[in-house]
Amino acid sequence: MESESFYGVTLSEKEPIAQFAVPEVAEEYLVHSYKLIIKQISLGPEAKSGEFNVIQAETQENESKKIVKIPIAVLKVGETRSLRPNVEFPNGSVTFKLVQGTGPVYVCGKSEMNLGEYEDVNMYEEYSDEEDESELELDEEASPQTNGKSNKKK
Amino acid sequence: MESESFYGVTLSEKEPIAQFAVPEVAEEYLVHSYKLIIKQISLGPEAKSGEFNVIQAETQENESKKIVKIPIAVLKVGETRSLRPNVEFPNGSVTFKLVQGTGPVYVCGKSEMNLGEYEDVNMYEEYSDEEDESELELDEEASPQTNGKSNKKK
Amino acid sequence: MESESFYGVTLSEKEPIAQFAVPEVAEEYLVHSYKLIIKQISLGPEAKSGEFNVIQAETQENESKKIVKIPIAVLKVGETRSLRPNVEFPNGSVTFKLVQGTGPVYVCGKSEMNLGEYEDVNMYEEYSDEEDESELELDEEASPQTNGKSNKKK
Amino acid sequence: MESESFYGVTLSEKEPIAQFAVPEVAEEYLVHSYKLIIKQISLGPEAKSGEFNVIQAETQENESKKIVKIPIAVLKVGETRSLRPNVEFPNGSVTFKLVQGTGPVYVCGKSEMNLGEYEDVNMYEEYSDEEDESELELDEEASPQTNGKSNKKK
Amino acid sequence: MESESFYGVTLSEKEPIAQFAVPEVAEEYLVHSYKLIIKQISLGPEAKSGEFNVIQAETQENESKKIVKIPIAVLKVGETRSLRPNVEFPNGSVTFKLVQGTGPVYVCGKSEMNLGEYEDVNMYEEYSDEEDESELELDEEASPQTNGKSNKKK
Repeated sequence: MESESFYGVTLSEKEPIAQFAVPEVAEEYLVHSYKLIIKQISLGPEAKSGEFNVIQAETQENESKKIVKIPIAVLKVGETRSLRPNVEFPNGSVTFKLVQGTGPVYVCGKSEMNLGEYEDVNMYEEYSDEEDESELELDEEASPQTNGKSNKKK
Repeated sequence: MESESFYGVTLSEKEPIAQFAVPEVAEEYLVHSYKLIIKQISLGPEAKSGEFNVIQAETQENESKKIVKIPIAVLKVGETRSLRPNVEFPNGSVTFKLVQGTGPVYVCGKSEMNLGEYEDVNMYEEYSDEEDESELELDEEASPQTNGKSNKKK
Repeated sequence: MESESFYGVTLSEKEPIAQFAVPEVAEEYLVHSYKLIIKQISLGPEAKSGEFNVIQAETQENESKKIVKIPIAVLKVGETRSLRPNVEFPNGSVTFKLVQGTGPVYVCGKSEMNLGEYEDVNMYEEYSDEEDESELELDEEASPQTNGKSNKKK
Repeated sequence: MESESFYGVTLSEKEPIAQFAVPEVAEEYLVHSYKLIIKQISLGPEAKSGEFNVIQAETQENESKKIVKIPIAVLKVGETRSLRPNVEFPNGSVTFKLVQGTGPVYVCGKSEMNLGEYEDVNMYEEYSDEEDESELELDEEASPQTNGKSNKKK
Repeated sequence: MESESFYGVTLSEKEPIAQFAVPEVAEEYLVHSYKLIIKQISLGPEAKSGEFNVIQAETQENESKKIVKIPIAVLKVGETRSLRPNVEFPNGSVTFKLVQGTGPVYVCGKSEMNLGEYEDVNMYEEYSDEEDESELELDEEASPQTNGKSNKKK
């Protein structure tokens, strides 16, 4: 079951940080995957002329588990007011930080959540115990965020 | 059954607001999902030089149910005449407002509607009562707009 | 059976209008859907400096059946030579018009056609008469262009 | 079986033409479809200031069989150094030509090839002779390039 | 089983080269395909005014096996600070090099890995030996990177 949502956040001198993380879902569900796509980052009309505004993303690479910190937007009135980076954060966890400038900077995008029920998982385990094991193991690698709950499986 | 349509609206000083909402459909149908994608926002040739034109979107985030108000276009003749925000409003409900400037501003995009029949839902219920319940519960969360009709199911 | 094609047309003072419509197909086929996507609109090197060139699209919205006329490109040498509107016309019918300026303006894109055979439709009808009726009814709404032929079904 | 590849070619005064066509494949295979997508066209740092560089595409439209010649990039140092036309050539055959300017111009994209085996086709024919006939007929229309080999079917 | 990851790397005078290659995976898995998509390349705020920064990609074309070296970004402060080339490297192997300029240049994108287990392959072979042979042969052509391991099959 996939659920999509508009994502919008404003960064400024006062609120320079936005954290994106897997949301709380009802007890009986499990977040299979959670992705954020950043579609557009732009300066507000009141941004200061000539000032650089730099938005840094901090996230984890899936394979290497390495933490990456990299600017995804370098904006400046009169030069670059708006960008469409279209970058994706498939592991559901990223922090955006206005590391230079005073903003305001508008960050717009889309989140995609893939939800399942615990029941489904259990039912599946009864019929295919062994195969399930290896699959789950890999799933954890691919999308480690399972909403902070301990895995019911034993 | 999916149906797509071109979407185009002009905002100006006289008509600064455009509302997008789930349309009326025939009695026997049900809107499963309804999405608007904004492809391009641009200033008309007659827009005033040096004036900022700011289009704000107001919509609801799916998970948090939080109302978000955020500019999706900051335009200015001689600097930024046109943008392709490519933002998506998956819950079928968004209001665009020209909060600064006099326009005209052209907003172009695409709407995607997913339609079903009430019959289908009823038929499905007969065969799988319990499972259906939990699914519908989640569906409502993911796409709350069901065309303003009360759910026939009892 | 889907068929894709490159689409390219040049608009100028002498030929300011281009019409896109469902093409003629062989007797035994039926056009299920036909879509045009405009990828890029750009000014030729010989376009006049300082002159606005405006391309207007005229099409019909699917749900409301409303005719929409809206500029999809406002171009000007030295400011905006090229745009990638990426707008889609899913109902297979749109007219582009150079309403301001002398061009030349290059319009590039892609068409997508979905073809079926009459035989398939007839075969389907034999087995599921009632259900078919409501589906066809909706299909017509979603993609009214069926190549100008009267529907064989009676 | 789909195979994708990066596509990159440099056009200049000395080599102003690049032809894209279905490649040679092993005897036992058949090219079902072959598509080229042009992602980015940009001027090199050594391009002459103030000079227009125009890249023309020449290809065939699928439905009308009409040959189209249209510029897909009008570049000029200090104005437009780079474009992302994102145009697609689904019939696997297109010629790019630097019709104005001296370059260098970098053309980057992606090719997508869909391959099958002759065996598969033969097997299919045994079981569904008549239906196959009409399908193949249409396939040829949609993607006429079958690698220059004569069709084995008799 | 598909796994996606954010990809981000910074190139500068001191570290002008970044290599992308199929990562190490656990013994029992096999990398079916591995793709890198470059979404955005941009200059840092400290980049020198008037200096060209050129990023070259070096990779192999799939069909021809030809090595291609081509600039995918020509950046210059005051002219082009940022690009979205959106180029794809489907064979999982590419080297990016800052061949001109001192940076810093931020390269952002996404990697997509398709993983399978050796067990699956073996199971498949038991049931369809002959067909498998030709398929694997083609697979190697399409995605030659199998993580540097020798193929278990004999």
